[in-house]
Amino acid sequence: MRDLGNDLRWLAINSATIRPWPLRRQIEACARAGITAVAPWRDGLAELGVERARELLQAHAMTVTCLCRGGMFTASDAAGRRTAIDDNRRAVDEAAAIGARCLVLVAGGLPPGSKDVAGARAQIHDGIATLLPHARAAAMPLAIEPLHPMTAADRCLVTTLHQALDLCDALGEGTGVAVDVYHVWWDPALPSAIARARGRILTYHICDWLVPTTDLLLDRGMMGDGVIDLRGIRAMVEAAGYAGHCDVEIFSANNWWKRDPDEVLQVAIERYRSVV
Amino acid sequence: MRDLGNDLRWLAINSATIRPWPLRRQIEACARAGITAVAPWRDGLAELGVERARELLQAHAMTVTCLCRGGMFTASDAAGRRTAIDDNRRAVDEAAAIGARCLVLVAGGLPPGSKDVAGARAQIHDGIATLLPHARAAAMPLAIEPLHPMTAADRCLVTTLHQALDLCDALGEGTGVAVDVYHVWWDPALPSAIARARGRILTYHICDWLVPTTDLLLDRGMMGDGVIDLRGIRAMVEAAGYAGHCDVEIFSANNWWKRDPDEVLQVAIERYRSVV
Repeated sequence: MRDLGNDLRWLAINSATIRPWPLRRQIEACARAGITAVAPWRDGLAELGVERARELLQAHAMTVTCLCRGGMFTASDAAGRRTAIDDNRRAVDEAAAIGARCLVLVAGGLPPGSKDVAGARAQIHDGIATLLPHARAAAMPLAIEPLHPMTAADRCLVTTLHQALDLCDALGEGTGVAVDVYHVWWDPALPSAIARARGRILTYHICDWLVPTTDLLLDRGMMGDGVIDLRGIRAMVEAAGYAGHCDVEIFSANNWWKRDPDEVLQVAIERYRSVV
Repeated sequence: MRDLGNDLRWLAINSATIRPWPLRRQIEACARAGITAVAPWRDGLAELGVERARELLQAHAMTVTCLCRGGMFTASDAAGRRTAIDDNRRAVDEAAAIGARCLVLVAGGLPPGSKDVAGARAQIHDGIATLLPHARAAAMPLAIEPLHPMTAADRCLVTTLHQALDLCDALGEGTGVAVDVYHVWWDPALPSAIARARGRILTYHICDWLVPTTDLLLDRGMMGDGVIDLRGIRAMVEAAGYAGHCDVEIFSANNWWKRDPDEVLQVAIERYRSVV
């Protein structure tokens, strides 16, 4: 397991963590704090403009660990699925334009009114397969992210790391996985899945699971405030060959999003040093 | 797949569904509604008294599909774990006294302050192993219930059906599983796990997953109001040899618990006939 060192070389800040700020302020604040890597979201990117974002990221010599996010491949009809593919092609282009190391894919849940889990999963496979030639041409790796099963119905029917790896096996070159501790920590098959992911972990996201958790989407904790064995999972991920950033991604409507983002960055830095 | 028929032979009502009422009223209301099977919880049983409950259940010729619940084997120290075992032995005795067909076990989450998932899982294994001789002597099958991963931290670190079956494999005779659609519907390995569970499904619980879900514990839906493919899962469970009851278990603080329990029973009966 790596000693992350006293500098902030392997710390990345995901836009979700300091979401109250627009992307420009996020990048500038990270630079001021000595952070050298960020992970933007597409809404912030659209607001700032891709070209301006590219210049700003370059001016601050920021590594872009990933772009969040593409995906949402499931839909009630073929037209809806084509729209999703078109949007994902644009996401690939945006990721390439800002030099992101990968594009994170959140697969999508059940189409409205549907209970057909297997059918939706087939749509997810087919959607990524359709997107893949464009991503390969842009040399943009697709990071399939398993999400916590509590988001399966309306957000992501890829619910385990083994399932994401099954998709990678089926789809081949240009695909990999995003490992977010929040989504996978509970999985009894986590050790075997992480070992299996060797060479395919494209990005690693951290936060914490709070007890109690009061919202299925927006109540994530700062590292150290919950029950996730962050050191233990990082050890497994690094034993599987991952040597990249730890990307802090905290959705927190009632706590961290209500604080001064500069303070949030300082706490994230402190926790990165003490508990990650 | 069975035709459940027009009578209510395979419908069981779990006490959780009509929780505002004490057990006596629950049993009497079920009998009035033509329901022939119930699944009590231990708190209601304690309040009524085991012997009185036994007489009442017998007077109404009620099948007791299961007693909810034993488990909670994890604790910070050996004394805490011994206390849990003692309590589980009493739960076995209570289940035997009322003629329950099995005792449901909810394994337990992380002990307070702990992040040691593997250690807690070892405690769960050891706890059931310690309880098992008493359960075998009482001829009371132990139904290990995988719970939805969103309850992993504070309630149940058995989060998948395959993991529950691994425990059954390790522990042997006298163990089996409880399959609750709410807890397992999202699992990509569900078809293989249900097939593997052949001969070991001791009880089958139904309700529905609501979109959105507003609480991790107390926002379950009535069958038909959510996204779970109830017919599809029942078909798999029955193909694996299960021929018992469908036990309606709905924790619903803000909807069904606020209604007249007689109305809840009528809706459950209607949905049992139309969507289960």
